[in-house]
Amino acid sequence: MKKILFVLLSLCIGQALAQTADEITIKSIYDMALKNGQSYEMLGQLTKEVGARLSGSPGAAAAVEWSYHEMKKFEFDSVWVQPLMVPHWVRGTKEIGKIINSKKMGTLELNICALGGSVGTGPQGIIAKVIEVKSFEELAQLGTKNVEGKIVFFNRPMDPTKINTFAAYGGAVDQRGGGASEAAKYGAVAAVVRSMGLNLEDYPHTGGMRYTANGVKLIPAVAISTKHADLLSRLAKEDKDLQIYLETHSEILEDAPSFNVIGELRGSEFPEEIIAVGGHLDSWDLGEGAHDDGAGCVHSIEVLRIMKAMGYKPKRTIRAVMFMNEENGLRGGLKYAELAEKNKEKHIAAMESDRGGFTPRGFTLSGDEKIKSKIRSWKSLFEPYGLSDFSQEGGGADIGPLAKQGVMLIGFLPDSQRYFDYHHTATDTFDKVSKRELELGSASMTALIYLIDKYGLK
Amino acid sequence: MKKILFVLLSLCIGQALAQTADEITIKSIYDMALKNGQSYEMLGQLTKEVGARLSGSPGAAAAVEWSYHEMKKFEFDSVWVQPLMVPHWVRGTKEIGKIINSKKMGTLELNICALGGSVGTGPQGIIAKVIEVKSFEELAQLGTKNVEGKIVFFNRPMDPTKINTFAAYGGAVDQRGGGASEAAKYGAVAAVVRSMGLNLEDYPHTGGMRYTANGVKLIPAVAISTKHADLLSRLAKEDKDLQIYLETHSEILEDAPSFNVIGELRGSEFPEEIIAVGGHLDSWDLGEGAHDDGAGCVHSIEVLRIMKAMGYKPKRTIRAVMFMNEENGLRGGLKYAELAEKNKEKHIAAMESDRGGFTPRGFTLSGDEKIKSKIRSWKSLFEPYGLSDFSQEGGGADIGPLAKQGVMLIGFLPDSQRYFDYHHTATDTFDKVSKRELELGSASMTALIYLIDKYGLK
Repeated sequence: MKKILFVLLSLCIGQALAQTADEITIKSIYDMALKNGQSYEMLGQLTKEVGARLSGSPGAAAAVEWSYHEMKKFEFDSVWVQPLMVPHWVRGTKEIGKIINSKKMGTLELNICALGGSVGTGPQGIIAKVIEVKSFEELAQLGTKNVEGKIVFFNRPMDPTKINTFAAYGGAVDQRGGGASEAAKYGAVAAVVRSMGLNLEDYPHTGGMRYTANGVKLIPAVAISTKHADLLSRLAKEDKDLQIYLETHSEILEDAPSFNVIGELRGSEFPEEIIAVGGHLDSWDLGEGAHDDGAGCVHSIEVLRIMKAMGYKPKRTIRAVMFMNEENGLRGGLKYAELAEKNKEKHIAAMESDRGGFTPRGFTLSGDEKIKSKIRSWKSLFEPYGLSDFSQEGGGADIGPLAKQGVMLIGFLPDSQRYFDYHHTATDTFDKVSKRELELGSASMTALIYLIDKYGLK
Repeated sequence: MKKILFVLLSLCIGQALAQTADEITIKSIYDMALKNGQSYEMLGQLTKEVGARLSGSPGAAAAVEWSYHEMKKFEFDSVWVQPLMVPHWVRGTKEIGKIINSKKMGTLELNICALGGSVGTGPQGIIAKVIEVKSFEELAQLGTKNVEGKIVFFNRPMDPTKINTFAAYGGAVDQRGGGASEAAKYGAVAAVVRSMGLNLEDYPHTGGMRYTANGVKLIPAVAISTKHADLLSRLAKEDKDLQIYLETHSEILEDAPSFNVIGELRGSEFPEEIIAVGGHLDSWDLGEGAHDDGAGCVHSIEVLRIMKAMGYKPKRTIRAVMFMNEENGLRGGLKYAELAEKNKEKHIAAMESDRGGFTPRGFTLSGDEKIKSKIRSWKSLFEPYGLSDFSQEGGGADIGPLAKQGVMLIGFLPDSQRYFDYHHTATDTFDKVSKRELELGSASMTALIYLIDKYGLK
């Protein structure tokens, strides 16, 4: 009995001491990020000196260079690139959208932009009547006789009552992704999609679309600002003959060469066990890709930089991965997983930050239940820093392809309320990022990677 | 035994049903705030049409009018004002601050502003050498022989490693509040105080100061932007003869008449039990008082508006209180408590929102331990909305004077990371407030007031 008590007591003391050591290390991580962090300065460079960086663009090439040299500058153990080919879509000159025959208001400019991946109208533009729908079901019910020759206007808003704005996005984004092909099935000549945003605003939100249906025409697709979506809806209801003019100049060019960029701290005890942490280096072309996903890139570089600056020698190999082409192809994520498999690399975990640089709330987890439980057992270490949500499922788009290698996937989970104010718009700029919120993100990610490195995930 | 089981079961079912009913009502509250909320529109009016509203200013008078008519418009059961007198400090024409003899840089403009409550330098200004200190202890050690005739520069920054930024503020604000009087004890001619902000910025943060020491001279006090505080510190270290010129035109006028503004929904069962919810109507003069504390005002009006719009008939009396003069006198809070006592009113709880319009994280509680426990037992109802912090002590400045009447005090607790980016500066403007974050605040406050109204706090 005494022996059992002694063992139990020793275990308790052992755990308590470990807890205290971890608390101290995690405090040092946050202190380092908040006092001497470099994530904000890095993000300033990536957004202001590099700027927009759509796959295949000169900006994307500059972002590859920047991140490579940044990680070299920090003297990570190795820095290298993974060549790959990316889709190459270009917007061309600025789009024109107009209501041309409103009885009330005559001609009226509309704030629109081509959706990424869409064909253009060409310089002659398209003039047609508008038919509004809220869903693919409604479109199907209307059928060819009502839709043929018209521009289909998809106008189902994101649901503002969902507290998690990503859930609201998930409930509306089918219109952007597949609306054009659905409309083309019934003979539509173009698709106009309500922007994926919760506010009433003046700027359109771009984003990826795909031609999903075989054998139907590739028709142009544009996003319209939420304010003008409301206006168009009102005017179209009052006036069945309302016509709009669309002129877009986007083109799909041949695939272009690009790179993932990777920096690594080599593990001292189990170098073959890899923990990857990444964001995507590409962004849409309208803003500066500050929250999406400059934040995730600098978060990830900062994880390694903080560890190095603290003199922490990881047992396992820690990699910062700048994935290319998340926005319109996922080629970077696919290439990374392909090479990991080919090279027989053993990733024990992959973390992604692609929900913006806002105040950390927790992490999403996807993978083995036992490993999830182990990670959740560390939750109390994060609560003093405001992170308490470890319950949601999820990882990230770029790390997703690693799932079939059995890798534990982890998503950095910041506050979601402002994300869709900026997402894929001209307003996703450096000034929208709070220095402290960004730094807290880097620190939170570093703290979790530290725990995974120290204890492993067995 | 069977009877006991039956009773226990009934209790459980009863509780489960109540929980479900509360979950449904709280969901309706959030839905209302997020779909048909009016807090953001109200805040637009208060910041853009009324604007800055320092006690005694025309802006403050306009804010009284605005809030009175707004609550009348919503047809609350009664709307009235409480007359009171407020301190009347005016800034006068814009301040001038200059380094005049830097060996390196010659003359150099400094971003400064007078602190609220400070006397001015007069048009002749003040020229003197600068002596930097980090604390009152350091100042005392330097003593009269080092300080006399000089301008004392208080330059202890807010501690960026504190996760709760209000704790960092609390650790630095003594310099602003009492620095001038402390410096005057040793013969200083003016005080320059590093702005209470965590970022390196160009704009100074004003805020209240008081002449705390008896019998010492009232010397002028100004805030300097954090960037220029760093610059001044560097140049003063390099050059012991560095002099600065300060010219401020602020004046303390006679007390001016003003008002608290109150709207009320009368309780149907226990009308004598009052639940107050408020923010402060006055703001500093440099910005628009958007987060401080326009947000708290519209949060509070919105609580009553949502209840009314939902057709909810409160059992107890619910009051929205627009307190006047929190920033430089607290006269509104003192008057409200004085009248409550005089009129033998029975407040069962008072809630204040004065930490900005950011994403809700929880509530602070101050009062009887049993009542705190009761409120904390409702925590799980708030977790789906992201509120999980019910552990901190605290209420709010304006409701503070109610404490000695034994009133339970509750502080609305939003995310604190961005608050001191805007606090008391020209940048505390409407565009810094996120519509959704503001709406979530109104909803969270309404939900807690609903529970207190329904169950009481016995």
